[in-house]
Amino acid sequence: MTQNSSKRIKVGIVGGTGYTGVELLRILSQHPQVDLHAITSRKEDGMPVAEMFPNLRGHVNLAFSSPEKAPLTGCDVVFFATPHGVAMSQAKELLEAGVRIIDLASDFRLKDIATFEHWYKIPHTCPEVLDEAVYGLVELNREAISRARVIGNPGCYPTTILLGLAPLLGGKPLIDTTDIISDSKSGVSGAGRKAEVGMLFSEAGDNFKAYGVAGHRHHPEIKAQLDRMAGTSVGLTFVPHLVPMIRGMLSTIYVRILPEARDTDFQALFEKRYANEAFVDVMPAGSLPDTRSVRASNALRIALHRPGNGDRLIILVVQDNLVKGAAGQAIQNMNLMFGLPDTVGLNQVAILP
Amino acid sequence: MTQNSSKRIKVGIVGGTGYTGVELLRILSQHPQVDLHAITSRKEDGMPVAEMFPNLRGHVNLAFSSPEKAPLTGCDVVFFATPHGVAMSQAKELLEAGVRIIDLASDFRLKDIATFEHWYKIPHTCPEVLDEAVYGLVELNREAISRARVIGNPGCYPTTILLGLAPLLGGKPLIDTTDIISDSKSGVSGAGRKAEVGMLFSEAGDNFKAYGVAGHRHHPEIKAQLDRMAGTSVGLTFVPHLVPMIRGMLSTIYVRILPEARDTDFQALFEKRYANEAFVDVMPAGSLPDTRSVRASNALRIALHRPGNGDRLIILVVQDNLVKGAAGQAIQNMNLMFGLPDTVGLNQVAILP
Amino acid sequence: MTQNSSKRIKVGIVGGTGYTGVELLRILSQHPQVDLHAITSRKEDGMPVAEMFPNLRGHVNLAFSSPEKAPLTGCDVVFFATPHGVAMSQAKELLEAGVRIIDLASDFRLKDIATFEHWYKIPHTCPEVLDEAVYGLVELNREAISRARVIGNPGCYPTTILLGLAPLLGGKPLIDTTDIISDSKSGVSGAGRKAEVGMLFSEAGDNFKAYGVAGHRHHPEIKAQLDRMAGTSVGLTFVPHLVPMIRGMLSTIYVRILPEARDTDFQALFEKRYANEAFVDVMPAGSLPDTRSVRASNALRIALHRPGNGDRLIILVVQDNLVKGAAGQAIQNMNLMFGLPDTVGLNQVAILP
Amino acid sequence: MTQNSSKRIKVGIVGGTGYTGVELLRILSQHPQVDLHAITSRKEDGMPVAEMFPNLRGHVNLAFSSPEKAPLTGCDVVFFATPHGVAMSQAKELLEAGVRIIDLASDFRLKDIATFEHWYKIPHTCPEVLDEAVYGLVELNREAISRARVIGNPGCYPTTILLGLAPLLGGKPLIDTTDIISDSKSGVSGAGRKAEVGMLFSEAGDNFKAYGVAGHRHHPEIKAQLDRMAGTSVGLTFVPHLVPMIRGMLSTIYVRILPEARDTDFQALFEKRYANEAFVDVMPAGSLPDTRSVRASNALRIALHRPGNGDRLIILVVQDNLVKGAAGQAIQNMNLMFGLPDTVGLNQVAILP
Repeated sequence: MTQNSSKRIKVGIVGGTGYTGVELLRILSQHPQVDLHAITSRKEDGMPVAEMFPNLRGHVNLAFSSPEKAPLTGCDVVFFATPHGVAMSQAKELLEAGVRIIDLASDFRLKDIATFEHWYKIPHTCPEVLDEAVYGLVELNREAISRARVIGNPGCYPTTILLGLAPLLGGKPLIDTTDIISDSKSGVSGAGRKAEVGMLFSEAGDNFKAYGVAGHRHHPEIKAQLDRMAGTSVGLTFVPHLVPMIRGMLSTIYVRILPEARDTDFQALFEKRYANEAFVDVMPAGSLPDTRSVRASNALRIALHRPGNGDRLIILVVQDNLVKGAAGQAIQNMNLMFGLPDTVGLNQVAILP
Repeated sequence: MTQNSSKRIKVGIVGGTGYTGVELLRILSQHPQVDLHAITSRKEDGMPVAEMFPNLRGHVNLAFSSPEKAPLTGCDVVFFATPHGVAMSQAKELLEAGVRIIDLASDFRLKDIATFEHWYKIPHTCPEVLDEAVYGLVELNREAISRARVIGNPGCYPTTILLGLAPLLGGKPLIDTTDIISDSKSGVSGAGRKAEVGMLFSEAGDNFKAYGVAGHRHHPEIKAQLDRMAGTSVGLTFVPHLVPMIRGMLSTIYVRILPEARDTDFQALFEKRYANEAFVDVMPAGSLPDTRSVRASNALRIALHRPGNGDRLIILVVQDNLVKGAAGQAIQNMNLMFGLPDTVGLNQVAILP
Repeated sequence: MTQNSSKRIKVGIVGGTGYTGVELLRILSQHPQVDLHAITSRKEDGMPVAEMFPNLRGHVNLAFSSPEKAPLTGCDVVFFATPHGVAMSQAKELLEAGVRIIDLASDFRLKDIATFEHWYKIPHTCPEVLDEAVYGLVELNREAISRARVIGNPGCYPTTILLGLAPLLGGKPLIDTTDIISDSKSGVSGAGRKAEVGMLFSEAGDNFKAYGVAGHRHHPEIKAQLDRMAGTSVGLTFVPHLVPMIRGMLSTIYVRILPEARDTDFQALFEKRYANEAFVDVMPAGSLPDTRSVRASNALRIALHRPGNGDRLIILVVQDNLVKGAAGQAIQNMNLMFGLPDTVGLNQVAILP
Repeated sequence: MTQNSSKRIKVGIVGGTGYTGVELLRILSQHPQVDLHAITSRKEDGMPVAEMFPNLRGHVNLAFSSPEKAPLTGCDVVFFATPHGVAMSQAKELLEAGVRIIDLASDFRLKDIATFEHWYKIPHTCPEVLDEAVYGLVELNREAISRARVIGNPGCYPTTILLGLAPLLGGKPLIDTTDIISDSKSGVSGAGRKAEVGMLFSEAGDNFKAYGVAGHRHHPEIKAQLDRMAGTSVGLTFVPHLVPMIRGMLSTIYVRILPEARDTDFQALFEKRYANEAFVDVMPAGSLPDTRSVRASNALRIALHRPGNGDRLIILVVQDNLVKGAAGQAIQNMNLMFGLPDTVGLNQVAILP
């Protein structure tokens, strides 16, 4: 199962007309070991990719092709940058052709089919592939990912919250797991490149609001992974908000430190946990990470605060929702699956200002 | 034809779910002599207006009703805040019922039917009403408006360009009318409240571009009025641009001063022309008007520049595209039609910052 | 102490060159019973106000004058739109001249001088005036305000949090007061009109971050009022964030419902509490108020959420930080002090979009 | 004078605390043949660069050092990302030490000292270095740059206007050179990282305005280069505008086609002129380039429009003002000076959305 790391990887993308699609293309077109082999769009069959996304002019010469015509089975790996429901319908055929799959939607994120069907309102048509699928959060699942044929690439909110909490869970009890709050904020690109009134510039601009308070699809995904890490059912309150910026996500996570854990050096704990992770940056205690410090990069930055040295621990986590929260993470998964270091093709510096 | 200025005006709005609709409601709900009588939306029949536009909570108690049920013929005046083609289909019936009409779309702006049909791609079904319609740019057409039954409310770009040029046209020759350039810039709300990919926050935000360079529907409207004022066929280059802001419009107009007019005091000319106009503010020479200085107000500000005292005159004009460029202007027209001073209900101060 | 409500009020403003200053001017210039009498700025002595703030052209003819020359003692009321420390230095003289004072800074907000001096790093030079000062949150303090000579106008964050929590405090125990979290978000105008690198468009734009996590000056102000209402020392975690928008503030407040209060109808409780308050809008349960629904208006909107009908109550509160969070609230205080209804001159509809 | 292209280049940066500084660092830290050797800031002596600019965490380990201590004379090339006046004061000493110089400010852009002193209000203290300095617009000056010791890196506006006009000048007469208009628009980062009220988010956000209409420092720079290319004195009207976006610049250039040139295939002319230029993209005729299509990349895109096939040619030019308009162009110059292909380390794809 080891890879020859100099071998080139033939990549296909299903559904390349959205923001995760163009972000995959931006990064993969610069990846030193990737050949873009096929990109599908039923609606845009024949249109050069760079015509839809002029930033790719001079970098990507491919045209969209309809799914039927696209040489997907000739790829080494196929990314699904599609709405939920698409990857599960094509997974078996691709696997049989020896193609690995990284789904950026939710088809392979939730192991519990009833939960999936409750939240996504469609039947899960591919439970056997779901069985073998690996949740693609590299920093939590490195080993399994490197051996996986199918990856459920994590949601953007879950990435921030799970990496923000992982060091606190699974060892000796440190925090009250019955009462975790994540007040999360996302840039508008998280809503995708769909024509929706609520995401118009004149609606989302110069404006701020909470949404999905009554229930957001990322809630069960976060909870499933937290439960797994904590070894118990976690109590999670999750409130997402929409920020008038294009990219970027910040989760402000509130946990209560257990009395017996009050002497813990949380800063050291986090630094140790992520010491060998290229993309998780535990900043000095008291830092205030801003989203632009990770804009267009695969970095995720964490800062801890403990006001008055009391029993509240506040964990601030930032990422670019389209990179570490989507396309970058997917490529990090690909790197692992093909025996490459995490950072190959992913080491871009964030754009500031 | 004189009006009793203390009489209340019963107002109807057709198509109140867009930005000009909500802006009409914002202003009319505070107008001291207006009773909001009916507002139609086929799609939102029965929905309280304030549910769609929560800024109106506590100010507007009306619900949308379908056009069939709405008591439009009981109104004194009906505003059409609809796409083109709607006003012309209902105009005759309303006029016969004694209702005046102010169309914020283009049905009654262009006197030449062939031009209308060329640019708007639909037949004009109501030429007899078009005949009597008045172009509702108050500062150019005050007399006719006060007697009108039907108003074609000007487009947003035309308002800036026509008011920016009017003092230069129609008297003794001052500028080369064969070569006028307006480089115009608009906030995104000008595109309306329609779900369009290009107007998403993630598309229009942190971005700038020209559009409609090959031809924009406001071009024939501007040219028709300029021709009329100049008494000759004017040469106009008009390039609109999209600015990542919600409201606001700035036109930078370039004209060439004729040799025989080099000694003209243009500042005095403009100040005199607009001395009695409440909403046209000729700023001191050399001023740099910004769009926020008129945000949410009916003011239009003009500043003149003549670099190096040469033969180029640069006219800067700003307005809020939704107010003086649409709803405010429409209400200013209504005021005139009902014998009220221009400023009644329209004297809001711009929001800064 | 009753007022003749038709009497005109002579108003002075100290420090009118900031955002609360121009916002006071915007609203007061339209207030039907106010005469703007004096506005001071040492630095801009002699400059017409409308030259600095062109939105006021045609609405405010006053010029700034240096504090020494300004006829402040001839005013009925003086607003201080200054940094902290200024109001306390002039309060006694004005009071002696019979002038009432509304301080928009913090000089008269905190009754505990040690707390003030700890957080604001200057000595409090006017404790006797502080003694009589009233905390100007109308909906909590209506009676005292109507009789007050000196008002400490609340901070912007405190206004949202206190009005969001008031119905839950002071009666029978409903929530765990040892553990209240407010995750609050503010537009950039809250930082004022000061040249600071961190507030540049290129720094704060397209960006999001928390700040002041280790301690924010509004924390003791909020806590003092919560303690007073709850009759006990409240445990408060307060994390402010900076949103890339100009105006607007949203607080997401997390409280835990006590077991004995699980059957409470919180929606009814809030609606009843604010039934007679013109500016507090308790929206239907489950609403998602956005900041633009209050932009440039004095409204504050509240919505309650109780996910899964569990023991977490989430209170969403929005306001315009410059209006209900500053200038509008100050004018609401003035109205009460002079025997006018709250809404006089303050009934503007929010600007949307 | 040829270079060994595998040799590493030791780079120093003077004044690295502004936006062009951090942009140089972002790109140079990824440049495969560059070693960052020194970065100076008098004010921030000792501070790690990545503390000021957290996007550089993990990419740049250097700290700022005061100019006196920085090992600048040990560099192969030094970039000046400083205000004007600094480079000229240090140029001679560095040249004597064999160090090449690329000044991103204006000290070496204008050959005419009187013009420099008129616009920049300081004496030029280094005329002998100015004599040998080369104007660093690669696409116009490739040969001279490759041999240069000192580069005056072009201003951002000039880059768009000169590259937009170059194909039209210097050959047979095509356009009326007495009457060229550039209506140019820039993102706010062009104003630099200086605390200025006018550049605050609350001032520049949701706002649009012209500035510098009476005279902008880039005017003489543009005119000097246009005159040189045209071989005659060109008539230029240049009006810059401020766009509420961080990065990006668009110039809308209006020229009049001469009667004898009406049959010219301008599209072919432009395509041919830039056929071998990696960073100048002549888009298909009628394209509407947006600034985000070049955001954070060194690309400059041009599109031609000739409405109605008349005698007006409109040239749209976009670039990222901090990349092709500043730091990227400077590095492109460095590549040439050290015998490398233009694109080394500069081939980043633009960030969209």
